[in-house]
This record gives sequence, structure tokens and C-alpha cells, in this order.
Amino acid sequence: MTVEQKLAARGLALPVPPQPLGAYRATVEANGTLRISGQVPLRDGQVVFKGRVGEALTVEQGKQAAELTALNVLAQIHRHLGGFDRLVQLIHVEGYVASAEGFYDQPGVIDAASNLFADVLGDKAGHTRAVFSQTQLPANAAIILVVTAQIEPQK
Amino acid sequence: MTVEQKLAARGLALPVPPQPLGAYRATVEANGTLRISGQVPLRDGQVVFKGRVGEALTVEQGKQAAELTALNVLAQIHRHLGGFDRLVQLIHVEGYVASAEGFYDQPGVIDAASNLFADVLGDKAGHTRAVFSQTQLPANAAIILVVTAQIEPQK
Amino acid sequence: MTVEQKLAARGLALPVPPQPLGAYRATVEANGTLRISGQVPLRDGQVVFKGRVGEALTVEQGKQAAELTALNVLAQIHRHLGGFDRLVQLIHVEGYVASAEGFYDQPGVIDAASNLFADVLGDKAGHTRAVFSQTQLPANAAIILVVTAQIEPQK
Repeated sequence: MTVEQKLAARGLALPVPPQPLGAYRATVEANGTLRISGQVPLRDGQVVFKGRVGEALTVEQGKQAAELTALNVLAQIHRHLGGFDRLVQLIHVEGYVASAEGFYDQPGVIDAASNLFADVLGDKAGHTRAVFSQTQLPANAAIILVVTAQIEPQK
Repeated sequence: MTVEQKLAARGLALPVPPQPLGAYRATVEANGTLRISGQVPLRDGQVVFKGRVGEALTVEQGKQAAELTALNVLAQIHRHLGGFDRLVQLIHVEGYVASAEGFYDQPGVIDAASNLFADVLGDKAGHTRAVFSQTQLPANAAIILVVTAQIEPQK
Repeated sequence: MTVEQKLAARGLALPVPPQPLGAYRATVEANGTLRISGQVPLRDGQVVFKGRVGEALTVEQGKQAAELTALNVLAQIHRHLGGFDRLVQLIHVEGYVASAEGFYDQPGVIDAASNLFADVLGDKAGHTRAVFSQTQLPANAAIILVVTAQIEPQK
């Protein structure tokens, strides 16, 4: 099954990836590495999960936000590469979770993103990880994911 | 026009880039990538913008801080490469903004850095971006920028 | 002296590096770069330094936490490469310090990690650095280190 078919089997589809709102780029390719700008839980141009996990949002909602953010990451990769054939593997995922004071299970929230990557990318999911708790994020988003991927050089 | 001439046209000049104060380096080159240590809004050895945007600092002062920090980034690149000829493009910019609770427009602040890069580096400005809100930063700085650049290998 | 001998001379030894607790990897190698997942001050499977520097922990304890975290970084590199021969240099270290409000010397805390790297890796210690203050970290850890290293390609 293709990545898109695996997503469909979960009832998911790649969103239209957001374009930068300033003088930067959604993706940059250099030396066999693809960088993706920080993604948030965006759907139809709106941040749909706002506020702190453990406060405005439940842990379950935090995981939904992480999965939606991961979908946006996949959409950016797909747009840049024109599919997933040139993707070698995800290298690194940094996950930022807006969190209530005293909530310490940010890794459990970001697992929803890592699990989606593993389920739909298989061996290409790879990725080391670093996870952080934040008091707030830009646009009051619940999650930011910053991802780096290894790609085959352009021929 | 050269980068330096474009800066001069804006009334700006490259500062003397700060040296590390510990057992690390200002810049490291590896595999065609240049890493630059986190830069702060430093002028003549002093952090000149301190505290939180939306509290101690206005948004306009935050933007001035972001631009000054971006100047320090350019100064580090210039020192490492002996100019900007070997710079291929900026790959990634992470922008951290010390922020008042409830202030969510960190991207608007970091735009001042992205805009400076675009204005003086042109096609080489490139860069994906991730922006964060912080309750405080080391030395009570208002801004930290962490930048990665693609460079031509040394001959 | 080898890295292990230099550690022993300081009364230190490489711990058994922690395995990921989710669908990600401790280390990923790509394009001559080794990425290491965020490390915490772990000993025998327990986070042994918890809470904020300047509050639950003294600055001295923060430095001990940073050194212990650096040991875990070295252990991950050692496990991935089967030693340190293939290590060219550390490229970049991001240091996150859980901190009391108004405590601004996170660089002084992370110096304990940079100093350990310099002492035992010598010329290979390299590394640019970015240091941050955090209100809290996952698992209530006092420190997270996120490290990237340059390695010789596999033959």
C-alpha cells in the first residue's frame, strides 16, 4: 500500500500544506536533507487545537492535535518531493506541547505523531526525537512539530 | 550590491561577532552545512534588548531586537566564511521570543529577522522557520536565533 | 588515553544508554551526520535530577545534572558507532534547563556538559551551542541535551 492508501485506511487524507505567511519557505532542501518549517495543528487554514494540554485540552485531544500536525508534516514532504518515493527516512522530530504546569507526559502526546509516521511510512519513519513542554506557542497552537528528513538527491 | 552595501543602504553594518564564553564554538562547518551558535540582540558586548515582548518591550522593540540578532547571525557567517561568496543559502532559522503570557504573535516579531535576511541575502535567504514563545531566555535576552546555512565545501 | 580512560580518570563511566520508549530511535545516521534523541539526567533507568534550577535544585546540582546528561549522550554515540573512532566532531548541542523565574545563567549550567565533552573528546568536542530556559521539561527532568555529531561514513 502507498502512504496515501495507508492514510485512507485510517480515515485520513493529506491536507493542502500551508504556505509560509512571511519571508521564509515551507521546505528547504540541502545536502540530501529536507527541512520543514514548524507545523501546527492546522485544518482548512485554521489552528483547530488551541491552548494547553492538561488545561484547555485533554491528553486525548493533545494526541489528536499531534496526529493532525503530523499530517501537515507529511503534506509538506509530499508537496516538496511530489510524493514519497524520494523520501529515505525521517531523521529527527522535535515536538513542542503547550502544557499545564505539572503536566509531564509530553512524550505520550507526541507518540501520536511518531505512531502515525511509523504506521504510514514503515521503515522510512526512522527519526530521533526531542520533546518539550511549553507554556504557550505562537497562535496559541497546542502543538508544533519541527521535522528533518533524509531524501535522495535530485537527479 | 554586496551584502555589506545592502546593509549600509539600510543604515546597518555588521557588528564584530561575539566569541563563545565557554568550551564551545561560535560556528562549526560539517558536510556542507554551517551551524551558528544561538545569537542574542548583542551590541558592543551588551544584550541591549532584555525582557518579554508584550511586557518590558513593545512589539516594535521586539522586531528591533530580532533585526539586531539577525545582524549578529550575518556577522558570524561573514567571519566564518570570510564574506558571503561561499554561502549557498540559509537552511533553517529557529526564533525564540521572550513573551508575555497571552502574546501570541511571535512570528510577527521574527519576521523582522526573515525580512532582513531576504533584503540583504536575496536568493540566498532561503530558510525554513520555527518560532517559539519563551517565558525567559538566558541573560534575560528578548530574542535568540539559531541558524543553519548551506555552504560550498572548502576547496 | 581513550575517551573511556579519560572518563575513568574523572571517576566516570559510560552508562547503558536508554532505549526509546516509543516509535522512534535513540540515534539516526544520515549523510555523515548522527542525530541523538533528547537525553535527560538518567541513571539506572531513573531521572535523578528533577525540578527547576534555582528552586528545587541548586546551580551546582544543575551542573551535575548537565554532566550526567552529557554522559548519556556519549553513551548513545558509543553504542551507535561501537566506540568513538568514527566520531569526527560534535556539531551542535542544544541545552534546555528547567529554571526558576529570574534565573538567567543557563549557559553556566550547560558549561558542565560542554566542559565534559572538551575534556574527554579533545579536538572532537567541537560544537556550536544554543541554551534555553524552560519552566518544566518532560518527566520533570532538570536538563535535556539534543546533540548532533559529524561521523565518518560507513565503509
